[in-house]
Amino acid sequence: MSPADCPLCTETGGLGLVSHERWRVVRVADANFPAFYRLIWRAHVAEFSDLDAAQRTECMEAVTAIERVLREALRPSKINLATLGNVVPHLHWHVVARFDWDSHFPNPIWGEARREVAGGAEARLALPLAALDQRVRAALAV
Amino acid sequence: MSPADCPLCTETGGLGLVSHERWRVVRVADANFPAFYRLIWRAHVAEFSDLDAAQRTECMEAVTAIERVLREALRPSKINLATLGNVVPHLHWHVVARFDWDSHFPNPIWGEARREVAGGAEARLALPLAALDQRVRAALAV
Repeated sequence: MSPADCPLCTETGGLGLVSHERWRVVRVADANFPAFYRLIWRAHVAEFSDLDAAQRTECMEAVTAIERVLREALRPSKINLATLGNVVPHLHWHVVARFDWDSHFPNPIWGEARREVAGGAEARLALPLAALDQRVRAALAV
Repeated sequence: MSPADCPLCTETGGLGLVSHERWRVVRVADANFPAFYRLIWRAHVAEFSDLDAAQRTECMEAVTAIERVLREALRPSKINLATLGNVVPHLHWHVVARFDWDSHFPNPIWGEARREVAGGAEARLALPLAALDQRVRAALAV
């Protein structure tokens, strides 16, 4: 996949929240998993090991900052971190707050659903998504 | 979950390959994904952000070393990295080599299967698992 064909090079890929020199952060629109953020490395590289050591640390410290916001704001059952990229091989990290009541828990978000969430997942979060987004922005302010 | 009830505190959780002061590495027995390694943090902590900054770097540099071995030895279509822990909330990282011919590609390993792999996946790897394990061991030698 060339950058010209790559959706993460040509599209926002979510609600843009943070724009940094080497990476950006978006929130993914997913009704089942509303607290779902994605860190997208700007350079069109496929694998985590394509980064140098300083870049890897920078990347994971930003991922960790997002994780911390989700933990403190939402008290989730678990945080899930993943970089897969099988469909879009451009380095991006998924950071997802999981709850024991969510549609798939304890299955991975890519696994089978386990239940319906009456009223929708977003309504059960401890704070509105706009407020959560603001905390993510603040945590990643340069 | 207390350490006494935690399978990653009380069991090996795979074929033991590397034993380090703060983490260990096993290979997971999965017929669909034979090149599947797992780094298990020794302390019974749930989340990546429970580590301090130096520990996070140490953890991800070890994950990266495994990723590099898989890339160089197997030329996979993609590497998948994930720490989920919804079932076993003890910090562990999955490092999986994925191939465009594998049973689930491009789906996540936790998603729906896409095909049968005639002859089994292990037979298609560029080198025997014992040789791959040896390279992982060598890469993580202290």
